Amino acid sequence: MQTFNEKIKNICTSKNNYLCIGLDVDNEKLKNQSASYMRDYILDIIDATIDLCPFYKINFAFFERLGSKGFEIIEKISFHIGDKAVKIADAKRGDIGNSSNYYSEAILDNLNYDAITVSPYMGDDSIKPFTLNKEKGVFILCLTSNQGSQNFQYNVHENIELYKHVAKFAIKLNDNNNIGLVVGATQSDKMEELKEITLNLPWLMPGVGFQGGNLKESIEIGLKNNSTPIINVSRGILMHRNGEIKDIREAAINYTKEIRKYL
Amino acid sequence: MQTFNEKIKNICTSKNNYLCIGLDVDNEKLKNQSASYMRDYILDIIDATIDLCPFYKINFAFFERLGSKGFEIIEKISFHIGDKAVKIADAKRGDIGNSSNYYSEAILDNLNYDAITVSPYMGDDSIKPFTLNKEKGVFILCLTSNQGSQNFQYNVHENIELYKHVAKFAIKLNDNNNIGLVVGATQSDKMEELKEITLNLPWLMPGVGFQGGNLKESIEIGLKNNSTPIINVSRGILMHRNGEIKDIREAAINYTKEIRKYL
Repeated sequence: MQTFNEKIKNICTSKNNYLCIGLDVDNEKLKNQSASYMRDYILDIIDATIDLCPFYKINFAFFERLGSKGFEIIEKISFHIGDKAVKIADAKRGDIGNSSNYYSEAILDNLNYDAITVSPYMGDDSIKPFTLNKEKGVFILCLTSNQGSQNFQYNVHENIELYKHVAKFAIKLNDNNNIGLVVGATQSDKMEELKEITLNLPWLMPGVGFQGGNLKESIEIGLKNNSTPIINVSRGILMHRNGEIKDIREAAINYTKEIRKYL
Repeated sequence: MQTFNEKIKNICTSKNNYLCIGLDVDNEKLKNQSASYMRDYILDIIDATIDLCPFYKINFAFFERLGSKGFEIIEKISFHIGDKAVKIADAKRGDIGNSSNYYSEAILDNLNYDAITVSPYMGDDSIKPFTLNKEKGVFILCLTSNQGSQNFQYNVHENIELYKHVAKFAIKLNDNNNIGLVVGATQSDKMEELKEITLNLPWLMPGVGFQGGNLKESIEIGLKNNSTPIINVSRGILMHRNGEIKDIREAAINYTKEIRKYL
């Protein structure tokens, strides 16, 4: 039985790609705003890209706003992808132990996602329940791509920044080889140094494309220490040209070629 | 139009109470494990206590594990309570701006909850979208009741701990008088000092009851600076005696009496 971190390394090798398509589909921007149209559009995106793409990231915010119908789409996406790609639930959960247990059950067991993003603020007992199944991955927010990352993540305690404390903490939680970190691709001046701390932990890297993150650096630094960079692109793929399925396919091919240049 | 923090002060005065019942109902511990039984049981709890109780807190983990059916119960609870009490969505959300917008829309607008809990790790742009409607409240995780609170919350930067930085940050976000903080009732040795920083921000205080938090101190310190303590009790009420509706009513009366002793 492979651990999560072994599994993602293998799928990236087999697809020769590190691309993650962020399925941040805004139903209000579609021709038809119904939940069923949104669902079919997303399934078409997956069908048009899954030969290339090793990862899909589902941002729960875009679905929860549709209520229980959005929840059904989250279920459907997981079932549709199956084991042909790795399904990351970008849900940013984290609560006291008992509640985290239930979130884990909801997202990793019932919805059958392969991995989840979690917030570190509440500490180890809020994260451990997600880590118990070594086939399932946990990406801990470390150094995020947004402007607000500056509010707390750079706070220096015992000579190192909070995000580095989170990185060291993640290493300690990695007994099952299934922990990763969220590292914004916009943070290229800090990535090299951070890589030294995070050893071989995989990085989930949002921020390439519209947010301005540098793809070349993200790949080159992300691959160091024999680890796996997961290059998430959402709007840069979904909004390519007219956002039609063939446009999305084209953008996925373009990003794939670009990624392969730096391997 | 009242701001959220004015509204909660008024409802506490009118009910002469600061009790919040945490509706952490575990359907697997009920006689019948169906979603409809769980829903009816929760609505009965609300009917049996809403004359006394100014707040209900809904921990989303307990509902999401039931999938879209759990989501329907979350909707139903909000509709059932209406404006007879304040409905707090304990969802611990927080993401980059656009996603937080959608979570806000999902929970505060569509589900019509009065307030939400959020994690501070990603900073101001992850929280601001929740704060725009001054009638809706935002409780930022500050000093949590769990053991893992020690991992990062006590990190000292520029001579003060991270949780105090979060408290100062919360004060800055309070332009609409709708920000509060989550302060675990188990943290009684730190509450007095924290109150000096948080001025009149309300505190949502889990941890009384099974987790061992001190009710007297929570009330007395929580009321300082003309602010509003929200005393959350979950298992201590739901698991009183046999957990039947009359037992829960009895526990709610007992906690109410105890709270009133310290006013």
